[in-house]
Parts: sequence; C-alpha cells; structure tokens
Amino acid sequence: MSIVLGANQYGKAENRVVRIYRDTVRHEIRDLNVSTSLRGDFEAAHTDGDQADILPTDTQKNTAFAYAKEHGVTSPEDYALALGRHFLDAAPKADAARIAVEEYAWDRAPVGPDGHDHAFVRRGGATRTAVVTVDGHGAGQAAYVIAGVQDLVVLKSTGSEFKGFLKDEYTTLPEADDRILATSLVARWRYDGTDVDWNAAYDSILQLLLEAFATTYSRALQETLYAMGRAVLEAHPEVAEVRFSAPNKHHFLYDLSPFGLENNGEVFIAADRPYGLIEATVTRDDASDPGNAWVSTPGFV
Amino acid sequence: MSIVLGANQYGKAENRVVRIYRDTVRHEIRDLNVSTSLRGDFEAAHTDGDQADILPTDTQKNTAFAYAKEHGVTSPEDYALALGRHFLDAAPKADAARIAVEEYAWDRAPVGPDGHDHAFVRRGGATRTAVVTVDGHGAGQAAYVIAGVQDLVVLKSTGSEFKGFLKDEYTTLPEADDRILATSLVARWRYDGTDVDWNAAYDSILQLLLEAFATTYSRALQETLYAMGRAVLEAHPEVAEVRFSAPNKHHFLYDLSPFGLENNGEVFIAADRPYGLIEATVTRDDASDPGNAWVSTPGFV
Amino acid sequence: MSIVLGANQYGKAENRVVRIYRDTVRHEIRDLNVSTSLRGDFEAAHTDGDQADILPTDTQKNTAFAYAKEHGVTSPEDYALALGRHFLDAAPKADAARIAVEEYAWDRAPVGPDGHDHAFVRRGGATRTAVVTVDGHGAGQAAYVIAGVQDLVVLKSTGSEFKGFLKDEYTTLPEADDRILATSLVARWRYDGTDVDWNAAYDSILQLLLEAFATTYSRALQETLYAMGRAVLEAHPEVAEVRFSAPNKHHFLYDLSPFGLENNGEVFIAADRPYGLIEATVTRDDASDPGNAWVSTPGFV
Amino acid sequence: MSIVLGANQYGKAENRVVRIYRDTVRHEIRDLNVSTSLRGDFEAAHTDGDQADILPTDTQKNTAFAYAKEHGVTSPEDYALALGRHFLDAAPKADAARIAVEEYAWDRAPVGPDGHDHAFVRRGGATRTAVVTVDGHGAGQAAYVIAGVQDLVVLKSTGSEFKGFLKDEYTTLPEADDRILATSLVARWRYDGTDVDWNAAYDSILQLLLEAFATTYSRALQETLYAMGRAVLEAHPEVAEVRFSAPNKHHFLYDLSPFGLENNGEVFIAADRPYGLIEATVTRDDASDPGNAWVSTPGFV
Repeated sequence: MSIVLGANQYGKAENRVVRIYRDTVRHEIRDLNVSTSLRGDFEAAHTDGDQADILPTDTQKNTAFAYAKEHGVTSPEDYALALGRHFLDAAPKADAARIAVEEYAWDRAPVGPDGHDHAFVRRGGATRTAVVTVDGHGAGQAAYVIAGVQDLVVLKSTGSEFKGFLKDEYTTLPEADDRILATSLVARWRYDGTDVDWNAAYDSILQLLLEAFATTYSRALQETLYAMGRAVLEAHPEVAEVRFSAPNKHHFLYDLSPFGLENNGEVFIAADRPYGLIEATVTRDDASDPGNAWVSTPGFV
Repeated sequence: MSIVLGANQYGKAENRVVRIYRDTVRHEIRDLNVSTSLRGDFEAAHTDGDQADILPTDTQKNTAFAYAKEHGVTSPEDYALALGRHFLDAAPKADAARIAVEEYAWDRAPVGPDGHDHAFVRRGGATRTAVVTVDGHGAGQAAYVIAGVQDLVVLKSTGSEFKGFLKDEYTTLPEADDRILATSLVARWRYDGTDVDWNAAYDSILQLLLEAFATTYSRALQETLYAMGRAVLEAHPEVAEVRFSAPNKHHFLYDLSPFGLENNGEVFIAADRPYGLIEATVTRDDASDPGNAWVSTPGFV
Repeated sequence: MSIVLGANQYGKAENRVVRIYRDTVRHEIRDLNVSTSLRGDFEAAHTDGDQADILPTDTQKNTAFAYAKEHGVTSPEDYALALGRHFLDAAPKADAARIAVEEYAWDRAPVGPDGHDHAFVRRGGATRTAVVTVDGHGAGQAAYVIAGVQDLVVLKSTGSEFKGFLKDEYTTLPEADDRILATSLVARWRYDGTDVDWNAAYDSILQLLLEAFATTYSRALQETLYAMGRAVLEAHPEVAEVRFSAPNKHHFLYDLSPFGLENNGEVFIAADRPYGLIEATVTRDDASDPGNAWVSTPGFV
Repeated sequence: MSIVLGANQYGKAENRVVRIYRDTVRHEIRDLNVSTSLRGDFEAAHTDGDQADILPTDTQKNTAFAYAKEHGVTSPEDYALALGRHFLDAAPKADAARIAVEEYAWDRAPVGPDGHDHAFVRRGGATRTAVVTVDGHGAGQAAYVIAGVQDLVVLKSTGSEFKGFLKDEYTTLPEADDRILATSLVARWRYDGTDVDWNAAYDSILQLLLEAFATTYSRALQETLYAMGRAVLEAHPEVAEVRFSAPNKHHFLYDLSPFGLENNGEVFIAADRPYGLIEATVTRDDASDPGNAWVSTPGFV
C-alpha cells in the first residue's frame, strides 16, 4: 500500500472582469465573474513542491483580463472557449481547462426613448452562467459548453397543488389544493457542439423556461421542472440535456383564524430554512456523451 | 452615582409578509420584509423582569400578518402607518412605534402581451424601503414617513473624473480624467406630512435619481449625490430632505501594458474591499423638524 | 427657500489591515478591518465638484496601512486614536474623524505546549470592535472611545422564562417556564477618557458579560441585558455606558407529540427570521456627555 | 429520439436541529444543520405529477427532528446513518438516501473551573461535517461515511515560498521567498466501513491537519495539502482518502515604499477576490471503491 495523489485541479476563482465597449458614444457593458481551473499531471507540485509545470493562478488572472481585450466578450460562452483553449496551450501538462462564467445583466438608465448611452442600472436576479471545459490537445481536443441561469426567482400564486403523497408515521403535512409555488431556480443545459448562436439561444431558452413555469399546472415541483426541461429540448435540438436545482421557497399560509380573519390564499409568511430541494435532469434518450462537461459543476451527479 | 436604564426599544425584525391580491384572476403581489419596534417606559422589564407592559414580539409578528389582511397593503408607507398607530394603542406604555419595511419587486412572467396573470419573476435590485415612526398618543400624535430605495446599483462608463484633490505624504492616487463611477446606492427621503400619493411619489423620485445620476457630469461622487438630491427637492415640494449612503464600487483599470495591450477604459477589475463610502444629506434650509424620524435608521447623524 | 447641503461624511471602508509582529521567531498577528471617515466643511466638493479640500479615500487607505507600521497596532483603540488624530492634521477642513475597527482573533495552531510560533487558526465569533471619534483641532480636541464585541453568540439551555406579558387580541404565544435563550450579541461600551489599558479592559469586560449572561436567571432578554450592563459598570468605573443590540435567536420546541414522543426541552428548531430584536442602554446617571461619540455607529439613538 | 428523466433527487435541506441533553444539571448541546435527500425511481412524480411514491420533504423534516430524540445525537455520523437507513425503509421506491450534516461547536461559558453547566458560547469557525450515503435495500445495503471540516481558516506568517513556476507572456507575478500562506480549508475524508469511533477520529484528524499545516515548509499550497492528507492516511488506516478544497486567502504585502517605510513581511492587505482555488485528493493506491459516496458532495470529481 502507498499513498498517492488523486484527482486535483487548481485555478483562479472569481475574477471580476468588466468589459466596456466604447467604440461609439453608445457604450456596451459585459460584467463577468470568471473562474478558471486546470487539471492534468501536476504531481510534482504536490509531492515535491516543484512548480515548473504550474501556470500560476496569478497568470490565469492576467490572462482572463487580457482576453477580455484581445479576444473580446461577445458572449460568456465564446469568451470562455477562447480562454480554455489558450490555457491548454500555455500549460503543456494540463489536460483539461474549465472556465466558469457568471454574467450580471445591466439595463440602460431609463433616460430618453432608448435609454442612456453610458449610464446603466444593474438588473439583479437571473444571472446568466456558462461552464466551458476544453479537454485534450491537438486534433482530438474536445470542448463542452454548458449554459445556464441562476438566481431566477419565480413564483406562482395559484395553479399549484400537492397531494396524494406517501404517508408514514412521521407525516403531519396536510394535502394542499392551492398553494404558492416558488423557487430560486438554477438551470443548466448542455449544448451538443459549439456551433451555436449563444446569445440568441440563451434568450430563447430563458423565455421557454419562464413560459413553461407559468403555464404548467403543477402537481409537484418535480412535474414543473420536467415540463420546463421538455419545453427546452423540444424547441432546441442543439441542447442535449437540462439540469435543474430548485430550492422550494416555501410560502406558508399564515394562520389568521385566532384573530377571526379568513385567509383564502392571501397572506403568507415566506420561510428561509429548511427548504425542499428538488433536483432533476431532463435529457434525450440518445444524448451525446457528456465527457467531463459536468465535472466540478455543482449538481447531484 | 447610580446605574440606570437609558434609551431602549424592542420589537420583531424581518417578518416576511407576502400579500396576494386575488380578487380577480389577475393577481397582485406585495412582498415585504417588516420590522417593528416599540419605545417607551419599559423600565420594569429591564430592572425587575416584569413583562406586564410588554407587548411580546410574537404578538407584533401576528399583528403584522393580520394587518396585511385587515388593513391591506396598497403601499409600504400606508401599511406601516396603520401598523404603527395600532401598536401605540395596543401597548399603552409605548410612546413611539417604528415600522421599517423593505419591498421586493416582482414582474409578471413574460407570457402574452401583458404578462401572466399569476406567475411572477422577482426583479432583484432596487429594493423599495419605508420607515415610519408614530410618536405619542392622542391629539398630539405625530407620524414621520421616510421612503427610500436601496441596492440600486448604478454605473457610468464615462462622464466621471476625479482630480484636483488634496495631497499629502500618503497620496499615491493619480488624477483621473475619465473613470467608471459606480455605486450601490441607498437613498432615503423624508416627507412632510402623510398626505402623499406614496406609489406615484416613489416612482417619480426613483426616476429623478436615475436621470440625475446619468446626466450629471461627475467631478466626484459627492457632486453627483448633491445633484441627485437637488433634483428630487426641486420637483417634490412634499420632500423635506434626502439622505444618501453611497459605497463607491471601485472599477480599477486593469494594467494590460505588460502584455503589449492598450486599455483605453475598456477592461476593468471590479473590487470588493476596501471601498470609498460617501454619505450626504441634501435638505431645504427651512426643512421641518425631523423629530425622531431618523432614530434607529442607519445613517451618519 | 433654498436647497443646501446637510450632514455629510466620507471615507474608506473595510481596509483589511493585517499586521504581523515578527521581531522574534514567535510571531504575533493583529487582523483588522478598518473604516475611516471625515466630517467637516466639504461643501465645495458637493456643490461645485471642487476637490481641493478632499483628502481622497485612497489616501486614507494608504495611511491606514502605513500607520500599522509607523505607529503599530498594540490595540484597536490605540491604533484608531493615532489614525484619527493624524487625519485631522492632514485634512484641515475636517472637524471630526471617525475610525471604526473590527479585530478578528487568531489562536496559535495547537502544536507543542504553547502553540506554534507562526501558524494560526482563526477563532471565529466574538469580533472585537472599537469606534474612535476625534473631534476638533488644537487644545480643545476631544477623543471618544467606544469599545465592543459583536458576533458573540451565546445560549442558555435553561434558566430562562417568559411570562406575565401584556396580551391583546393578536396574542397567541403561550407563556414559557423554561426555554432556550440565545442571542448574537452586539455590545458597545463608552470609556471616559483615553487613559485605559485597552486590552486588559476588553478581556475583563468580555468575561463579565459572559458571566452575567450565564448566571442571571432570565425573565426576559431585557432583564439579562440590564444585568450584563450593570455588571460592567459596577466593576469598571472608567466605563460611562453600555449599549446592547441583541437579536433573539429563537429556538422553538419541536412538536414531537404527533409521533408519540415527549419533548421536555430536548429538541429544538433554530429559526432564522423573524427574530425579536432587543436594544438597551445601561448607563450611569451622571455619565459624561457622549459628544459625537455615537454618531454613525449603528444603534437606536 | 424521446425525452426522458435523468438523474434526480429530492429532500429537505438545512433543518436546524438543536439537541439538548439535560439528563443531569450539566447539559450538553449538539447543534446541527441537517440536509436529507432521496434518489430512486420517482419518474411518475416528474412525468405524471403522481406523488404516491414521494415521501414529502416535510415528512423528512419531521423525521430529522424526531430522530434527534428517538435515536439521539452522539455524533453527526451515527445520527446520519440511522436517519439514512430509516428513509430507505420509509420510502420503498428510494434506492439511496444521502444525509449531510454540519455541526456547530459550542464551548461552555467560562464560569468556574470547568465552565458553566448550561450556558454556552458558540465557537465559530471549524464547522464539523458528515455526509452519509445509504445505498440499497436488504442484505446488500451499503453505507458510506465521509467526515470533514469546513471554515477552518488557517494562516502561516512565514515558512512559505512560491517560486520556480511556469512563465508565459501573461506572467507578472514575482517569485516570493517568504509570504503569508492562508486558506479557509474544506477537508473531507472517507472512512472504510462504519466501525469507527466517530468523535475520537474527528478530533485526531483535525489535530493532524493542523500540525501538518503548521510544521510543513510550503513551496506551494499544493504541497501543503498533500502533506496534510498524507499525515491523516498514515495515522488512520480506517481512512481511505482525503479531499481538500482550499481557497487561497491572499495576503498581499502592502507597498509602503512611497512613504519611506520598509515592509519586511509586516503589513499586508487581505484580499477577497479573486482567489486561487486549489483542490486535491490524497488517497491510498488500494483504496476501496467509493461507490456513490461522493455523489452530490461539492468537489471536483
């Protein structure tokens, strides 16, 4: 028996890269949080303290900022692909690079009919995400792209029930015919290939998710998530699978009966903890092999 | 010399009251975080553990939820006024009640031309606030209303400079002709009186703040805040004063010169800490006496 | 009527100053979060954008770090006093400087009988605080020192009741003979004068607070806070007043009766929101004038 | 091609279970954050909204609290094993249950030589963790136990260098002979089997991790992590592997030279973002098969 190094990776997390396009008086802004990491044969660094093969995290940071200028940021996916490919060239001992991006949306300040040219208001909520993994060197190099959205807080004030569930000796929950359904959704979808109009696909998928959430009668959050995933897969053949992580933001009907008041779904207390957490994957039965696309991405598999 | 009780107050903080209006198929939602507190002659509770004059924080909680039904929530200000007046009746030893409300905005899910009837997406950012203090009993009872907005993250990608400042032996900052100006603004304004169209006033003032931020050339964040406050006071005679707390969200130009790249205001690193913190009040020279309107409200005076 | 500038201040918040003393092989660490601010006649900056009297927040930052070397950090109070006095010299238009410090405690790594010489483990919890305000110039310059502790999470699993309270039509809370009492305490105490052994006083007062919390039978959190304040004032004549902000960290007895289980104070659910918030001042009836000691410090007066 | 359900799980996250042992006047406290989840054949819930096989998350919550009484909490691992085994009985369609526990440590209030009987101070930092997965039914049922610690913030003020690293055109970092090394460590170790003295093993492993951190000269954080893992595996044959996630909490030497001051490793600025993130596994070359032990646990594989 001997002690050995197992899986490992390293990189620079949460580089707050802000790219302003100011070629005309009407500026554009891309506001990113970029995390890079490399995997590969870095055993000497661990066992002997030998850094000769280590491209420092500080250099990864510099590169993330330089690429915002050299390559530019037309979309998180395109930028991350460029960065990931570069790192495999720059660090010969790396065999995979993972680039994770969060993008915060800004609206133009509401001045004039089309908004202000260079003043912006941060939208909040609904952060766009991208996770790109570039795998291998040379002709066989693969690239995996997962796009997504997080902090998408949605709520239905009716059209949701929860009943007919399994009961045991620890069950006290009454069945509910009409309840609030709310979640702070994380959705991630994996594209087949990289020949995608990233921004158009994102906009369309976000809209499909919201429509399915709104219009599906819900007998459980599981059913709603499945309907949302199916809607995306039906409309977007370039998407192989969709994964959801949905914390149930419970809204409990407040008991007003001690005060002689009716409460027909009008007054709720929003609870913090504990919360139901529902996770589900919706996929094609012939989906392509994900390779290492999901490695390191929070989720349940 | 003896040891005595000084200023004190108690209450229930962060009641997450969600009120759904469902009188028609087109629902409305008011999503509030409500904190209540009472001040008065509560010495016996402190010195003798005698709770006879203490309206428990649990009862304050129940009342906050009951009032969402009994009184309703047409605006944070109106709801808070009703609640504050009630508490002074319910707790005879109280001489002031302070009700602080945060309201989170929801948009209708983008389904159909007018949005969905009962599915909503939380907007994020720009939380509306209200702080109401009801003071005293009977005919002389006063009520103070402060409205506001927080988490309003705004950014200008040009139109901001910082130069001509005082220098000493610890100064290293170069002067800047063109920089990013960004802040996560907290603004609070105090109304004279309570005969105000709360929702209309809020919408108008938020718009004025954004317009002034966008269109004022900035020689310092101080100048921008002053311009924003002045714009509000000029347009709204019912506002007595405006207070700002503005953490400067620094965006530092990333030095790309080691890589042979120009950076003419295109690539920035957004920094977390430390941050400049600018606080200012803009007021009328004949503003009404604020009484205890600002007591307990975070701010610098 | 005209629009004028009211109260204002500016500075650099949250400078994370870490000072290592390494004069011997046995290192010492002081880990600080320092916020500085200046008040005074800064009208030109606001109304005309004229920065000639403004000592930039960047310079304040440089000074905070330089003083960690030049003056040193023997205690947060001593360091803050030095920094505050310096700023009034450096910025002639300032008439007050406020320096707020949080200090995070580190223990030596548990290696050998006395701990390791240069490896440390951050303790977590119980952050020491100091707020120093230096006021005015020349012979009449005053200095106010408030010390304190925050994030001090304490809990009693018995020895606490809550009953005999005021009841109204919104009361549902049953009386409690034996409950958990827990809070995440913020305590701040104001010293008379600056001729104090800061570290010894802090250690003693923290111990007195914990002892009074532990050993006082509690008929309400208010009574416990009062007892804690009295204990400090009785033992420390150099302390003029003590202020508490105590969010009641509710632990609700979990109802196990549906499962045929007794629950005699053994199983609780710790709740997040809402929470009771109790604030109280304990003072001497002949306490010195606080001047502007408390300006800008979170609290209720 | 058709659309199908992929991997899924559901449960109740962040149950804040507090268990007081009060059989004698000297109370004991176990303060837990418990998350439960089930995996299995739950397709009908997703595709048809049929909840007949779903043990609701509310029931899982009730069970977590009931088991704190019925089974008790002698250690997070033992409690989680009992809970996980129960759920596989209670939910016949489940084929795996995952129970994740965080435990917050409390010290006795420092009153008297042995601390107070029923007053406690929360320690902060160094949260103990356990992740238990119970897999399958009947005789072939397996149970996997991962223990760990998180929020363990450690720092060395010397004994760390970083040099000899790979350089490219984006490298600007100078080599460092003597720097601060600090991290907020997450460590998780997997036990072979369940016949372990959970509390004794935890205490021993935590001590080994701290000793190895303190006493290993560090040529990179990677080397330090490897040494820490090796120390655990050498001393604990019941541990199969150790995984680390170590965000590098950068402490940058503050440049005091513009002020004519030397800075020989005495004054640092602690930075928030970005940060290096180093992840590594140290394992035996003949480690047992982890099965689904790591599924859903944050980490890079």
